[in-house]
Amino acid sequence: MSNSYGTLFRITSFGESHGPAIGVVIDGCPAGLEIDETFIQAELSRRKPGQSKITTQRKESDAFKILSGVFEGKTTGAPIAIVIENEDQRSKDYSHLAETFRPSHADYTYESKYGTRDYRGGGRSSARETAARVAAGAIAKLLLRRVQVEINGYVSQVGDIIAPPYAQLNLKDAESNIVRCPDAGTAEKMIELIDRVRKSRDTVGGIVTCVIRNTPVGLGEPVFDKLHAELGKAMLSINAVKGFEYGSGFEGVKLMGSQHNDEFYNDGGKIKTKTNHSGGIQGGISNGEDIYFNVAFKPVATIMTDQQSVDKEGNETIVSGKGRHDPCVVPRAVPIVEAMAALVLADFMLRDKAAKI
Amino acid sequence: MSNSYGTLFRITSFGESHGPAIGVVIDGCPAGLEIDETFIQAELSRRKPGQSKITTQRKESDAFKILSGVFEGKTTGAPIAIVIENEDQRSKDYSHLAETFRPSHADYTYESKYGTRDYRGGGRSSARETAARVAAGAIAKLLLRRVQVEINGYVSQVGDIIAPPYAQLNLKDAESNIVRCPDAGTAEKMIELIDRVRKSRDTVGGIVTCVIRNTPVGLGEPVFDKLHAELGKAMLSINAVKGFEYGSGFEGVKLMGSQHNDEFYNDGGKIKTKTNHSGGIQGGISNGEDIYFNVAFKPVATIMTDQQSVDKEGNETIVSGKGRHDPCVVPRAVPIVEAMAALVLADFMLRDKAAKI
Amino acid sequence: MSNSYGTLFRITSFGESHGPAIGVVIDGCPAGLEIDETFIQAELSRRKPGQSKITTQRKESDAFKILSGVFEGKTTGAPIAIVIENEDQRSKDYSHLAETFRPSHADYTYESKYGTRDYRGGGRSSARETAARVAAGAIAKLLLRRVQVEINGYVSQVGDIIAPPYAQLNLKDAESNIVRCPDAGTAEKMIELIDRVRKSRDTVGGIVTCVIRNTPVGLGEPVFDKLHAELGKAMLSINAVKGFEYGSGFEGVKLMGSQHNDEFYNDGGKIKTKTNHSGGIQGGISNGEDIYFNVAFKPVATIMTDQQSVDKEGNETIVSGKGRHDPCVVPRAVPIVEAMAALVLADFMLRDKAAKI
Amino acid sequence: MSNSYGTLFRITSFGESHGPAIGVVIDGCPAGLEIDETFIQAELSRRKPGQSKITTQRKESDAFKILSGVFEGKTTGAPIAIVIENEDQRSKDYSHLAETFRPSHADYTYESKYGTRDYRGGGRSSARETAARVAAGAIAKLLLRRVQVEINGYVSQVGDIIAPPYAQLNLKDAESNIVRCPDAGTAEKMIELIDRVRKSRDTVGGIVTCVIRNTPVGLGEPVFDKLHAELGKAMLSINAVKGFEYGSGFEGVKLMGSQHNDEFYNDGGKIKTKTNHSGGIQGGISNGEDIYFNVAFKPVATIMTDQQSVDKEGNETIVSGKGRHDPCVVPRAVPIVEAMAALVLADFMLRDKAAKI
Repeated sequence: MSNSYGTLFRITSFGESHGPAIGVVIDGCPAGLEIDETFIQAELSRRKPGQSKITTQRKESDAFKILSGVFEGKTTGAPIAIVIENEDQRSKDYSHLAETFRPSHADYTYESKYGTRDYRGGGRSSARETAARVAAGAIAKLLLRRVQVEINGYVSQVGDIIAPPYAQLNLKDAESNIVRCPDAGTAEKMIELIDRVRKSRDTVGGIVTCVIRNTPVGLGEPVFDKLHAELGKAMLSINAVKGFEYGSGFEGVKLMGSQHNDEFYNDGGKIKTKTNHSGGIQGGISNGEDIYFNVAFKPVATIMTDQQSVDKEGNETIVSGKGRHDPCVVPRAVPIVEAMAALVLADFMLRDKAAKI
Repeated sequence: MSNSYGTLFRITSFGESHGPAIGVVIDGCPAGLEIDETFIQAELSRRKPGQSKITTQRKESDAFKILSGVFEGKTTGAPIAIVIENEDQRSKDYSHLAETFRPSHADYTYESKYGTRDYRGGGRSSARETAARVAAGAIAKLLLRRVQVEINGYVSQVGDIIAPPYAQLNLKDAESNIVRCPDAGTAEKMIELIDRVRKSRDTVGGIVTCVIRNTPVGLGEPVFDKLHAELGKAMLSINAVKGFEYGSGFEGVKLMGSQHNDEFYNDGGKIKTKTNHSGGIQGGISNGEDIYFNVAFKPVATIMTDQQSVDKEGNETIVSGKGRHDPCVVPRAVPIVEAMAALVLADFMLRDKAAKI
Repeated sequence: MSNSYGTLFRITSFGESHGPAIGVVIDGCPAGLEIDETFIQAELSRRKPGQSKITTQRKESDAFKILSGVFEGKTTGAPIAIVIENEDQRSKDYSHLAETFRPSHADYTYESKYGTRDYRGGGRSSARETAARVAAGAIAKLLLRRVQVEINGYVSQVGDIIAPPYAQLNLKDAESNIVRCPDAGTAEKMIELIDRVRKSRDTVGGIVTCVIRNTPVGLGEPVFDKLHAELGKAMLSINAVKGFEYGSGFEGVKLMGSQHNDEFYNDGGKIKTKTNHSGGIQGGISNGEDIYFNVAFKPVATIMTDQQSVDKEGNETIVSGKGRHDPCVVPRAVPIVEAMAALVLADFMLRDKAAKI
Repeated sequence: MSNSYGTLFRITSFGESHGPAIGVVIDGCPAGLEIDETFIQAELSRRKPGQSKITTQRKESDAFKILSGVFEGKTTGAPIAIVIENEDQRSKDYSHLAETFRPSHADYTYESKYGTRDYRGGGRSSARETAARVAAGAIAKLLLRRVQVEINGYVSQVGDIIAPPYAQLNLKDAESNIVRCPDAGTAEKMIELIDRVRKSRDTVGGIVTCVIRNTPVGLGEPVFDKLHAELGKAMLSINAVKGFEYGSGFEGVKLMGSQHNDEFYNDGGKIKTKTNHSGGIQGGISNGEDIYFNVAFKPVATIMTDQQSVDKEGNETIVSGKGRHDPCVVPRAVPIVEAMAALVLADFMLRDKAAKI
């Protein structure tokens, strides 16, 4: 199934939505890193369900336990296992799905691939798995902090409501409202939209933008494991993601080279670029400018209205969402996007140590 | 540097733009596959420089030689090494770049990461490396052909000129014109634009769309190595790519779940979806519908006009493109996109064999 | 640290001797395999401490809990996380070792490599980690059982007491005595020796021999990942192992080719060899004959007598074993050797599925 | 097939005995390393056929060509591709083997696994593949030289003729005679034996011992990728190897812990051990003492006398060696053992850079 990610800073995730627990093993975290458990819990709380009226009402404390790899408050170089127990499973909400495939879920493809599936709450395909990523990403963030790397995600679009460009925002304000958009006016409109959609028993998509500052020059591997290629894979591996673009992205295709190129200049002894269409990455390697990218999330597949489907025997049938679900995934996706970005950067930071003699 | 890609069907690429040769080793190709060398050469010719007035005029025959792994016309299970000699290097075109960083190229980041670089023609960062991918991808296509998988790429956008949606096109027509757009009228406009841009010594970006038909149900690994996540990484690893989206992509974020979900129905015993916003992939696993995705390419960084830059000592200076370059990369990128898609699918096809007992 | 092992059937182990728990994540186990928890527990009990007078008296029930990947008694293709809590830690037995390096233990090298170590009971370097391997190996055995592969380890040597060759033994008898030697007379002598050594507060080494029957022809990858090379690595990765040989092994170097070669014959339609100096493996690939190999274990490093050593500051000092330790590791190593063999074979069985078209 | 080896310093080998060429791609060699081509050629010459009367008479110059990754005499961080053309193939010597399986060769297992094989000279299973390892190993040695690591292999046993322990030898003398045993008297007897065996159209086995000095403390990963476990795998992956032991090895099992343990002392500020039964490795990590190990090679399978075998249809038949073969593999195996050791150490040296913050 390939539930591991990363080369030197490598995580292995496990657990189903309605099993006893989910968790993650982090292998390759350098020894000597102080582990701030309060920070890890805070990151998990940014992702956890039930945090506001616009998220699912499933109640999980997402309290975590470290089983290994930390001694007297610091990492030892041994693998760090983290377990988060599932508390508020209501598996009976899902028993009607044992035989039926929900539209735009992973039910049909899992069943086809594996000949079976844990249908309770989506089993392994549930976004609950991303709690493991956030826990591991928190440790990656602690490692990156040591070199001042800052990762800030925020909601830049919900439906057709779009926030101003990131350069006009104070990204720290993202945490000041429940939709995690740093522009207060836009946030209000987004919240209204999500609430309206929720009441109509429907769901809506959105975009998370992420900005990474103070990346050291030289991270990323130049051919297949380009920095943006790994970031892209990391983001596309998050549930419900449909697209990734960095720097000028899809809009950049309309430009001429003379408009798009980022000219170099000497900024008091430091090599900088005048513009940043490159999004902080050239030839797959960080150049020290801001890395910024957009991640597109589709509307959540579980809606509370009737839809046509088929069962395992191929009989046509009607399914309707039960259980507790998010009307829009992007507010809770912000810490997931940041966590995956942190994992990618931490890994490249370690890999870069072997670049030169 | 990580010049390998794939898990079971795994390629390792090598070579610089102006070194003696480039090449690729394909490890993990199953034994018993007939190797059609004419087809491999044809694929390389679709990518090679100098093929039309809208591509670079560097002349390379891109003739390849298989050094190993094929015996009496068939693969043996041993690694297949393919070498393509470089013929038309004009390294002196680049000697002025030994000390200077070209804007939006990989010069500065390579120099920072490795403390050195082969500056001739971009060295390892040259798109010439993609010939290795196309050769390997041709073998992946031969493997996929056995299960009727068809991969068709085409140019869907150049600058702001946009082709109709793929469902309205006959994708086989992509090869009927030099810009590789299956819609004749759009193709004409694209060619005019590229030609105009070339004459103004500038460059322009574009989009390659790729459609994969007849994918078996069940390819892709559901957590980190989702089918679309690997496709995304594979595409983003191609030079000049800035974005990837599949299925409904970035536009899909504006939809409601009730609009976006793909309802199932029974099509004469086969489970199908009425719509295909999912782009043929659900939960990271192929569902048998068309897989389609867009790949955004920025305008080529080498332009024939003066730009401000800095040299290795940080002195500000002026650089101007020399050598022979493409005014727009997308026509030649079509076979590269297809090759990377083929490599991803071939790998997942092999990996899927271990999914069930 | 690289706490993962295997390519397709891949385990990730975690946990320290005196932390809250140890465990393992098994990724890549095919879906649909019935999980016999009684069998897993039985395997763990063969390895657990305190099972007889010739093993350490630490008391661990080694009760395990499956956290994921199994649904309604069968694997789902999702990662299987198994946790075993540590119950009988007596960490204070080790507090005197925080500053001192025990001879022939990993204390000095861990401290040098990581700048720190969890010194309680050897931390990550404790053989307690092998419980995770045995749990994972039990699942690999369940997979191998489906194709009738049988793995039987036994103690063939303790100190200078040597059992007869395996062909003269009924390997099932290994479990009939506490030293796990199938020859009753030899077993008795071994037990006496270990008991005598234990009373003298010393330790002694030994050899575990392992025989694998009914391996399908074709397992193993022929160049770097030869079947015996992986078996060798797997065995050498077990604590205290100093050597590995298969088939004719070190004795075989004295033979002539005409004596050593295994001639083929046709045994009623099946290709067999008359002799088996090859140990069931030719060119790194199984040939269907018995695979057999020897694994040499050094005497346990913890002895109950004074030894000269140094502390972290380099001061010379005296250390003496405390805590509870095995006087000879081989009786408990038998299930570990079998588990590692099972993991290697299960992985190659899955990898072999991609060998041919 | 898995023709790659190593994690960060990673090689991919390709080529058959009678194909156009063999070669290797080295990925992950740090940038800035000076490449001494004379040294690489000298290493290849130590392995090449036809170097003395006791080796095969096949004539190969084993001249190599670097295709990539080296610029102005230094590595650039890009993959280094090396190709060695096959010159003296006499494929017709092998045409009689297309249908027949040679005893104790890989013919039967390859045919079973892949459904086909390149039978000319053993194809991929030929020891000719090891030239690729020696070329790559030479580059690893250049990297290790920078930290004064010295790797010295020699022949310590042929048949039952055994050289004195390594501490009594001047290892540099290994190159002073054609059998590569540093003890002149023993060397003479070994040469006589090999020559006698050759004349009787037979072959004989032997042991290569390897000693590594000046290894930095801290190399190796402590659980599955223990330094000696990787060395073991690397050695066991060489054609004809049947066993591996390090430090006290198989003899060590007879010792008591009180005899075997290596007590620490302070040698003028440096932590050293009084004895070295550990073979320079404790807990899988180098401790700075000499690393030493033995590698057992079976007698070469190709003998010039009649042997019973079967053909592809299962018919019993007689085969007899043709072609040109070594009567004893160990003299030419010395540089191969050293090369594999160098690859393992270079890889661990790079991996160790990420151990601590």
